[in-house]
Order: sequence, then C-alpha cells, then structure tokens
Amino acid sequence: MEKEQLVSIVKESVPGAIETLKEYLRFPTISAQHKAIPETVEFVAKMITSAGGEVQILDELGGNPVIYAFFAAGSEGDASKTLLFYNHYDVQPPEPFAEWNSEPFDPVIEDGKLFARGVADNKGDLVARLTAIQILNRELGGLPCNIKFMIEGEEEIGSPNLEPYLKEYQELFAADACIWEFGSKDEEDRISMVAGIKGMAYMELTCVGADIDMHSSVGAYVDNAAWRLVQALASMKNKQNEILVEGFFDGIEEPTDGEKQVVAELPFDEEAVSKLYGLKRPLITAEKGTDPREAMVFHPTMTICGLESGYTGEGAKTVLPKSAKAKVDCRLVPGQDPQHILACIQKHLLANGFDDVKATMINGQKAYRSDFHHPFVAHVLDTAKVIYEKGPVLAPNSAGTGPMFAFGETLKLPIVSTGVGWVGSKAHAPNESIRLQDFEQGIAHMVLLLSGFAAALTGEERNVEA
Amino acid sequence: MEKEQLVSIVKESVPGAIETLKEYLRFPTISAQHKAIPETVEFVAKMITSAGGEVQILDELGGNPVIYAFFAAGSEGDASKTLLFYNHYDVQPPEPFAEWNSEPFDPVIEDGKLFARGVADNKGDLVARLTAIQILNRELGGLPCNIKFMIEGEEEIGSPNLEPYLKEYQELFAADACIWEFGSKDEEDRISMVAGIKGMAYMELTCVGADIDMHSSVGAYVDNAAWRLVQALASMKNKQNEILVEGFFDGIEEPTDGEKQVVAELPFDEEAVSKLYGLKRPLITAEKGTDPREAMVFHPTMTICGLESGYTGEGAKTVLPKSAKAKVDCRLVPGQDPQHILACIQKHLLANGFDDVKATMINGQKAYRSDFHHPFVAHVLDTAKVIYEKGPVLAPNSAGTGPMFAFGETLKLPIVSTGVGWVGSKAHAPNESIRLQDFEQGIAHMVLLLSGFAAALTGEERNVEA
Repeated sequence: MEKEQLVSIVKESVPGAIETLKEYLRFPTISAQHKAIPETVEFVAKMITSAGGEVQILDELGGNPVIYAFFAAGSEGDASKTLLFYNHYDVQPPEPFAEWNSEPFDPVIEDGKLFARGVADNKGDLVARLTAIQILNRELGGLPCNIKFMIEGEEEIGSPNLEPYLKEYQELFAADACIWEFGSKDEEDRISMVAGIKGMAYMELTCVGADIDMHSSVGAYVDNAAWRLVQALASMKNKQNEILVEGFFDGIEEPTDGEKQVVAELPFDEEAVSKLYGLKRPLITAEKGTDPREAMVFHPTMTICGLESGYTGEGAKTVLPKSAKAKVDCRLVPGQDPQHILACIQKHLLANGFDDVKATMINGQKAYRSDFHHPFVAHVLDTAKVIYEKGPVLAPNSAGTGPMFAFGETLKLPIVSTGVGWVGSKAHAPNESIRLQDFEQGIAHMVLLLSGFAAALTGEERNVEA
Repeated sequence: MEKEQLVSIVKESVPGAIETLKEYLRFPTISAQHKAIPETVEFVAKMITSAGGEVQILDELGGNPVIYAFFAAGSEGDASKTLLFYNHYDVQPPEPFAEWNSEPFDPVIEDGKLFARGVADNKGDLVARLTAIQILNRELGGLPCNIKFMIEGEEEIGSPNLEPYLKEYQELFAADACIWEFGSKDEEDRISMVAGIKGMAYMELTCVGADIDMHSSVGAYVDNAAWRLVQALASMKNKQNEILVEGFFDGIEEPTDGEKQVVAELPFDEEAVSKLYGLKRPLITAEKGTDPREAMVFHPTMTICGLESGYTGEGAKTVLPKSAKAKVDCRLVPGQDPQHILACIQKHLLANGFDDVKATMINGQKAYRSDFHHPFVAHVLDTAKVIYEKGPVLAPNSAGTGPMFAFGETLKLPIVSTGVGWVGSKAHAPNESIRLQDFEQGIAHMVLLLSGFAAALTGEERNVEA
C-alpha cells in the first residue's frame, strides 16, 4: 500500500470520526465531580460494538467502571499477537469557565482545530484508534492481529482503583505490547513519544502550632508554624537544589548506555524553554553544569507546588499563624518507591527535630521504563517515520506521570505512548484542542502500526511501508 | 475628697456619658473605607465644645482631619502644666458581619457590656476622658491644669499622615506628659498599662521565578520560586529562632536596671498562655531558658505572618509556581530603625545569593519607651492604685505597636497608655465591647489623675487620695 493510498482512505473516514468524537465530547465526564459516568460508559460501549468489538464492563471492584474491549484478528491476521490500548473516558473539570472561548462540552471547530474539554486528553485518541480499526476492517481486509482496550474512568483523579482490576483481570488484558493514552507534537512539530513515565510521591507537609491565629506581637515567645515549616523544608533541599533526605535515592536503576545515548540526542532548546515560561533565572542544570535532557528523564525531583499560611492579602495583617502547609511533589525514576520516599521524609523530619511537621501522601505512583531495545519500540518509531514529517522523538520516560507502572509490572509488556495532541493542546486548561491534521495523521499511524505489528514481534520482515 | 464621694459623682455622670458614647458609636468611621469622616469630626468637635473646650480642625497637610482640643486650667488650677491626651476617632472595618451578634454600628448594652465597633478602640476612651473633664468643671471647681487632645482619624490605617501634623504643630501640642489611647484589664482583672511601645518593620518578601505557572515535571531543570523563598527565609532565622541578619540588632538601647526589674515582676502565666492559644510546642523562651517577660518587652522579633505560593487547595495539583510571597513582621525595640532593618535584610538577601528575593516595607514604625523614672509615671500608677482593686501592671513598653515614637520624639514627653478596655474587648474583631464598670472606673481614674497632675510634676505633695 502506498502512503498516498493510506492517506486518502483515512481522509474519507475523518468526517464521520469527527462527528462521533463530537458526540463523545458532549458528555461532561468529570470524574472529580462524579458527572455523566454511566451515560459515557454506555456511549463508549456503543462505539466499540459499532467498530466490530466485544465489550465487557468491569465494575465489581469499586470506582468508575473499567471498559474492556476485544477485537479479534481477521482471517488473514495473526491471532497469536495482541496489541493493548490504554485510554480513559474521564476528563478534567473545565473550570475556570470564564477563560473558555466556547462551551467546554459543546465542541466547535475553528481554524482547523477542534475545541472541547477532553478532546486532547483523552477522548480524541480513543476515537482515532477505533477509527483505525474500522478502516482496517472495512477497507483493508480485516484486522492484522488481536486488539484489546482498557478504558478506565478515573485517570484524572489518579487511577485509585486501577490496580485491583489489572490484577484480577490479568489474563483478560494479557497482550504483547501496549500503546499508552497520549502523545503530541512538540513546538517544532515533531511527533513526541515516551516509552516510560516518571513516578510520583505527591505529599502534603503540615505544621500546626496552635488552635487559633494569634497577634504577631506574641512572636517574642510563641513558636511559629510557618517558620517551622520553612526550616523543615530548607532541611530537605539545599540552595544548590540538592535533595538532602537520606534514602531518597535508594534503589534507583542506572539507565543503560543505549538509554543515555537516546536522551543525549533528545531535542532541548534551553533558550526556547526560558522564553516560553519567562524564566527569571538560569536553569538549575545550567548552574550545575548538567544536561537538562538527562535531568528531565533520569533525575528525580522535589518540587514545592504550594505554600499556605496566615495572611496573604493586601498590606499588613499582624498575625502569627496557627498552621502552615506545603504541597511537595517528588517525581521518581525507575527503582524508587513512593512509600519509601514518604518514609524517608518522615524519618528525616523526626531526625531533624521536626516532629511537629507531618508528611502525608496524596498521590504515590512508581515510575516505569519499557525495554528500550524491544522490537515493538522500533516498530512504533519506524511506522511513525513513515507517517509524520518530523520526528519521532522518543524519550525513555516522560518527565510527567501516569499509572503505567501497574500495567508494565502486572502485564509484563513494553509500552509506548503516542497520540493526537499538539504542543498547544492545553490539556487540563481552558480551550483544550486538537488539530484536525494531527487527528488524521494519528489515525494513519495506528493503521500502519497495527498492520505490521505481529510481524515486527515475530522478527519477520516488518511491514512499515505504507 | 473621699473615694466614695468621687465614685458617687462619677456614677451620676455615667448614664449621660453612655448616651453620648452611643451617639458617637453610630458613625461608621471606617478610615480604611473612607467612611463617615466629616460627620464624625463634626460630632467630636461638638462633644469638645459641650465639655467646655476649644477646637481646631487641622487638615491642610493631607489625610483625614486631625482634631486639636484645648481646655484651660480653672482659676484655682495650675496653668503652667499641661496634660495631652492622644486618641483617634477612626475604627477598624466591622467585617466579618456574620460573626456579630448585633449590628456593629447600632450599640447595644447586654450583661453589663456595651457592644459596638470602636467602643474599646478608641471611642470609649475619648468619651471617658471628656466626661472626667466635665466632672472636674461642673462638680469639682474647675480644671486643675491645662488639657490638650490630639484626636486623629487614621490610626487604624497606620497613621500615615500624623508626623507632619506633629512637626508643624509642635507648639500647639506641647505638653508635659501624655496619656496614650488605650489600656485594658487583663485576664485576672488587673489594670494593665504601658509606658512605651515596640516598633515595627512589616515587610513583604517576594520571589518571581517565571511569567507563568508551569507543570511540576519541569522541576528537574527549572528553578522554583517557592524553594528560593523558603531558602531565603531559612537563611534569615535558624531553627533555634535566632535572627541571623547582620546589623539587625544595631543600636538597641540596653534597658535600665529599673526597667529590667519591673519586667521581671510582670505577671506572666506560661501555662495559661499555652492553654489560651492551644499551643502545640513549648514557648520559644522555655526552649532557650530565657524569661518570656523579657522577650515580650526587650527582644525584637521576626515573625512570618503569611506564606503564599502555587496551589493550596484540596488534593494534588502538579504545578511549579511562578512566584512566592511571605509577609514578615519584625517587632522592634528602642534604638532600632525600621529602614535600617529593611536595608539589612536586603543586604543579607544579596549577600546570600538571593538577588531574586525582593523585600519591600509595608509599615515601618520606631519603638518608644518613656523615662520610667519620670514622676508622671509614678503619678499614673499611684492614682490607679486608688481606683482599681487589682494592679496596676505597667510594662516599659507593649509587645504591640503604634505611632508613639513620633509623639515622644517630637514633643519630648513621657507617655503612659491606659484605658477602659478589658481582656475580652475584641478590638479589631466582631462583637467589640467594653464593660460599663470599667468605663466608670476609667472616668474616675482620669478625674483623680488630672487632680494631682500639676503637683506631681512640680514635686509638691501629690494629691493621690480620692
């Protein structure tokens, strides 16, 4: 099949796919607010059966239902090989409403972009994947392998119930490789993918010094929760941005030479980053003489996401605050355990005399990094090269986080994340969008990827030509 | 005059005084909101002339008008001696309204207390003082000395325009001693006074790291304003609550032995303080083995009043904040200069590499401590002993702050603060009140204090007997 032929087949399917996607986007499936869950599940099930798949709704282990879908290989396909897609049907809350240029749940197309909450994260990807399956079924002689989906409904609230379903239905979800939920084009239009993900230990540190706020004149003899928290935080990371918590780096897996080399070649434009955010200081890595690519992929972090204490309005209020709070987000790399990180921080606080500063976990997830040398990884890259003009750029793991560890560990498979977003998609923010051109290319990539999947895994000559 | 006789004369005047006070309290004189200023000034002027005084409204130097009042000594009085009263006619905003049990500007009497915004701070004191003058004029043969008032209208917003008036009208306000605006009975019903006041350097420390909030995953290479602020603060005061800013203690005047002795004898119930606030840790002073009385009066402080950065709501938001802010209140003792303190902190930040952390002054005031051995101080105490069952307790300076320095420095006089409040007065808070019994005693104390004032200053045998 020529690339032109594939592109033209995909083009024909796009209008119908957009209509389906718009319908899907009209459900305000906000997991944080328990909204529109049953109707969305019903709609997703209908999309799957329309594309020729079987559906199972799993919900007996708590949380929002997990949707399992199965599409059998066609008569000419290889039923011994299975690709698993991970998606989620829930979306972020749309607030702040005032900053949207259109209604978040009334999708509109403008200037080649489709705007709606959840279009980039993650409803657009699911529809692109189902559309690829329909194209293979209707136009290209049937499915070349078995295909499964896990579509969960709690990703945006940290997938708190995912692991039990994965463990209980390990057999059902068994596959040879997995395409993760997201991916996007970067600021230079390169398709950007990851084969892993950083973990996270998101904690709250609180210090309560008294039952009530006091007049600040008592600061001469009453201790101050805000000072205590500041001192505790300062003991955890120094001015040189070195993490000082004993045990924090325990168990970190050294990246392979291959991974190091890939990372050294990742695109990174220091000046562009600095300009994008309007940074007032040089990058931490510039100060330390380390490579920001390396830091992004291989180094764990400890970030203060929030500080709150006492009076923060205009002018002066002379108060000695009763309490102080910090949100601290540690991004973890393979080998680190969020529970161990929490325990190390708690131990550190006690050892340094901060028994009044309590650390509690809000969200803990382990990192995951696929085997970078697995033929599936090469296949994803090779097919992307055919479809996309620029890239692909593949990082061993993202700087961000998701529930990938449970997948990788339970199902024992390589995972690559790619999708239909772009650098301006504004996932989690007002005016979320995808570009229709990216949507179309995403569908084409999935058709090509599925076509050669079985052969790639069995070491046969792979079909990466369109 | 017997005490019983004085008490009975005062009692007769109280109902009329209460009616006047209620009328005065109905003006919502909120300086922060520019409310009811001209009508209140007019009413105060009327109260002064009704009590036999002359009024001058000073307003050509900006800000709300400053009211000057003069009451000449009677024919049997000593016109060579003048007592100055400092009061203010403005009040704090009444918010939060929902927490008031009655309308803030519709005074009500309940259970022996008069409730209204400003009744304790500071309208009740002015009416008590004017009532004492009326009693002396009408019942006791005229005024025993000259009396002046300075009644300003911007005390609750930090007296930003007071100093120019003091300087311009230095001659007009000239006096031999001054009674300051406030005072109250403590938790054991002891009348509690101060002969000075701590100063203040209330600053805002801000760090701006970027133009926008970022995804916290960039913490691997982007520096963090919240961490920078935390490190900067931690460099200014250590875990042992020792202030580390060079020059911070410059110029501090050593208290005299007399002052030290008085302070050592001040009442201070550590357990009661701890219980009142619900403290979770021992007092700083207990940890250091210093006397909390000494710390309260003689030690400067550095208090974090507020911290703000990034996300502080429920759960996790993975943000790297663009900026961070702290409110820092330094209470100063005599000899310290708020502008020097600010300069020292700015220098400290630069010297420690925190050129991105900016310190700006919100409110700066110098401390003031009267000459503790001045006969006026003894006279205030001696007359208080006659009127009040418990106390008096006199601190060389308060732990709190006010514009006393400009008075003391410009007019060169001893200042003692005493008034009609009580420990539960809730100045600045909802349900502000005074107790009618304290109001009555406050009037009696002023009558007695004025009666013997001239003699006390000239060293004649003082009339401290009622």
